[in-house]
Amino acid sequence: MTYCVGMMLERGLVLMSDTRTNSGVDNISTFRKMFHWSIPGERLIAVMAAGNLATTQSVVSQLEERNKAPSERHNSLLEAPTMFKVASIIGDLLSETIASRACHNGQSAAGTFAASMIVAGQIKGMEPRLFLIYPEGNFIEASYDTPFFQIGETKDGRPILIRGYERSMSFEAAVKLLMLSFDSTLKANLSVGLPLDLLVMERDRFEPLHERRIEGSDGYFQAISAGWGEALKKAFLSLPEYDLSLQQRQGAK
Amino acid sequence: MTYCVGMMLERGLVLMSDTRTNSGVDNISTFRKMFHWSIPGERLIAVMAAGNLATTQSVVSQLEERNKAPSERHNSLLEAPTMFKVASIIGDLLSETIASRACHNGQSAAGTFAASMIVAGQIKGMEPRLFLIYPEGNFIEASYDTPFFQIGETKDGRPILIRGYERSMSFEAAVKLLMLSFDSTLKANLSVGLPLDLLVMERDRFEPLHERRIEGSDGYFQAISAGWGEALKKAFLSLPEYDLSLQQRQGAK
Repeated sequence: MTYCVGMMLERGLVLMSDTRTNSGVDNISTFRKMFHWSIPGERLIAVMAAGNLATTQSVVSQLEERNKAPSERHNSLLEAPTMFKVASIIGDLLSETIASRACHNGQSAAGTFAASMIVAGQIKGMEPRLFLIYPEGNFIEASYDTPFFQIGETKDGRPILIRGYERSMSFEAAVKLLMLSFDSTLKANLSVGLPLDLLVMERDRFEPLHERRIEGSDGYFQAISAGWGEALKKAFLSLPEYDLSLQQRQGAK
Repeated sequence: MTYCVGMMLERGLVLMSDTRTNSGVDNISTFRKMFHWSIPGERLIAVMAAGNLATTQSVVSQLEERNKAPSERHNSLLEAPTMFKVASIIGDLLSETIASRACHNGQSAAGTFAASMIVAGQIKGMEPRLFLIYPEGNFIEASYDTPFFQIGETKDGRPILIRGYERSMSFEAAVKLLMLSFDSTLKANLSVGLPLDLLVMERDRFEPLHERRIEGSDGYFQAISAGWGEALKKAFLSLPEYDLSLQQRQGAK
């Protein structure tokens, strides 16, 4: 599978994705799942994908019109007037790609070809926006109440996100939080793997503020991963002890 | 669903279970999922169940021979020579119960009636043992490498167990750890609900050391739940900040 998180902050958007794909546990590969396109000074749009790799690669290729000669290609995402329109274009392309594959292989195969996506970006004059796109092509947008989206293997890395997230946090703190979320997931789920891709999109910058591939050998990631175990232990010890002499229930079964 | 954890320590065994059952989100009830039987001074055996409630209640009723007049009942768990035999008896009963229901409703319905169980206990002269019993009736035993079992909604509460568990920990610390694991699960999963049942089985005691139902109003649980958020925040702040000026990948897409 995959693990991707898109997070909306006051300062902008932060995205992180893993790079593992697998077909069974004995067939794993590394593929990039984060893509972005920009018109510097005007817009920056990023996409992360989870699910069937052929589906998501096809969607990205179609967005870039790779079926045409390089000189004739144009990316409709770079011409869409709003981020809502961007999400609609990607949603339609995603659901059509899944449906056409399922059509060739029997409708019950739709699940096999399914994928979901996170779309993040900002177009000049408008707010940064963050969308979660379902395999059916419809989508929801992040809000004050739900300011981040996860796709793929979302469970292991969710508790720390819920506890640690603050809308006003710095990009630095957000990256730290995302690394903890990915570290928890990596520890529990073999279908999520290093390296990680990181993209920081500052509000009104319209080009990446920071973009990096984080390898297993990354010093900061290693420090966070090792330090978190120690820090959690201290946090655990700081809480009061349970008292076994508390009233016991008698006669219970 | 359900969330139950059985944990093996040097000092003995600690079990915790929630009490929520649901059939859809609009039909929730409270049912006990933890049961135990003992011959004081000789054996103490506990069972926790997750899955189809009719299945697990039926298994427990059959163990107690509730189809017979009270005077004629005898519980085979109290006569089994070893904990391995106890696990076998429960496993067979569980798989037979599921199979007979599936037989009445078409074989494809087996999943509907499925359930899994955790069995914990000690018989005099032998070590405490902990088993996870699958719907198929087979089972695995906890070991030095895997010293705790979870059933039901296991994902949300797992990271803290993995990070916090130590074989040599006190019962008090183990209860604290379990409460954190349940708190994380309660926060993320509506199908797990308060109150919780707690059972502490001390090695060579052969009767419960401590047994309690933990309600939402429980002062210690509230302190742990609230304190953990604060403690995590401190732990998070104690880790080094990410440095956005780290070398950026150029030309990547």
